[in-house]
Amino acid sequence: MRITDETVADGVREQLFMLGEIPGALWTPADAVGPRPLVLVGHGGGQHRKGWEVTSRAIPFVQQCGYAVAAIDAPGTGDRPEHPEVRRLVATIQAGEAAGEPRGPEWRALCDVVAEELVPDWATTLDALQQLDVVGSGGPVGYYGLSQGGEMGFRLVPAEPRITAAVLGLIGSEWLLEPASRITVPVELALQWDDEGNPRDAVLALYDALGSVEKTLHANPGGHFRVPMFEIDSAVRFFARHLGVAPVA
Amino acid sequence: MRITDETVADGVREQLFMLGEIPGALWTPADAVGPRPLVLVGHGGGQHRKGWEVTSRAIPFVQQCGYAVAAIDAPGTGDRPEHPEVRRLVATIQAGEAAGEPRGPEWRALCDVVAEELVPDWATTLDALQQLDVVGSGGPVGYYGLSQGGEMGFRLVPAEPRITAAVLGLIGSEWLLEPASRITVPVELALQWDDEGNPRDAVLALYDALGSVEKTLHANPGGHFRVPMFEIDSAVRFFARHLGVAPVA
Repeated sequence: MRITDETVADGVREQLFMLGEIPGALWTPADAVGPRPLVLVGHGGGQHRKGWEVTSRAIPFVQQCGYAVAAIDAPGTGDRPEHPEVRRLVATIQAGEAAGEPRGPEWRALCDVVAEELVPDWATTLDALQQLDVVGSGGPVGYYGLSQGGEMGFRLVPAEPRITAAVLGLIGSEWLLEPASRITVPVELALQWDDEGNPRDAVLALYDALGSVEKTLHANPGGHFRVPMFEIDSAVRFFARHLGVAPVA
Repeated sequence: MRITDETVADGVREQLFMLGEIPGALWTPADAVGPRPLVLVGHGGGQHRKGWEVTSRAIPFVQQCGYAVAAIDAPGTGDRPEHPEVRRLVATIQAGEAAGEPRGPEWRALCDVVAEELVPDWATTLDALQQLDVVGSGGPVGYYGLSQGGEMGFRLVPAEPRITAAVLGLIGSEWLLEPASRITVPVELALQWDDEGNPRDAVLALYDALGSVEKTLHANPGGHFRVPMFEIDSAVRFFARHLGVAPVA
């Protein structure tokens, strides 16, 4: 892991890193010493590891719970190289959306292409992070991801036994029903009641399919991008309940 | 308002009172001075104002937010006199349940009979409570009620403009769709995914019908009586967000 940039603000240390070809970011308390819970944040489609949707979650997780929080760019985004197949599929999807057409097979194809690289990259990243003194191995690990970050979470969480709690949502892909049934860790699932691309019935079906004993659905009115800010606070408490809170240095 | 009993424990003052024929209970911080937000708690069917489901909410609301919290017995319960019509309807409903029959018209009849007295009694109680120094008039008022307390809340909240936020749930009566549409204050709505008496689709329809700009649905697995304890914590935060937190004496 090669640190390419480091800044400290508001008590939070942000380190950008490259792990082989994987561009990542790590946020920790500025005075962090010793192991602590880790939360992985998966960004949404077309976004990247330093986008507002990521940092708006990462900063409170660090400030309020003392966690380490990490994000990595998905293939074809952020500081990753151009990815012709991702580019082609996104262009086709966006053209369809502009024409008001329903989602075609390109959406699943895009998710499959991204996941094929991203899921193993998360495992590689988790391996490396757990070597750090401020993370440590064997501690609790959470995953947070909405929209395409939720799509990836439904694939990653059942495949990664180190993840012990997850906030997912804003996704209703029918092909996630099977992996959802293999998720057994506590889940908080976000549903936007008027989500244009993820009908409520599809998200409710995913909630129903989850194999977890503890699973909570949080529905709110409005479209895909209208998740209320108080749901960030809810995620903080969800992780605090399941991962614990870090000892103060 | 005649105080009939008063005890202080764990920093909470509990006062039982009679307001005319209405038996009530009021919980406040033991050292409370001056006005503060008020939360009315509606108990469930067959319960009463001092049942565990009421105090398990009232005590954290007082301890964590400094609120005044009040509950009153519904007609035919607790310290109210025998109510032959309530008694007859409850007996018919319970016999039907024991025989595994679907709910008949007695359930709506019971709700109508109870509400006919209880909704005006809540207004009378609110009038009296707002005369107290530790409550004050014109301050924020919340309502909390699940199950039959939710049924009553869907009737009370649209009729009582002093109520500015409500936690409701565990109810899916189709006749509540119309009053739900007249509720405009923020609502947190609880749904038990496997509720025997309140099918999820009926509760989701009530959520959809709510006229509130801010409305959040919290669904959890399990039957009617399996609401997770962390939903109490969620209600604390919901009210703190909408009613504010009381000044410390």
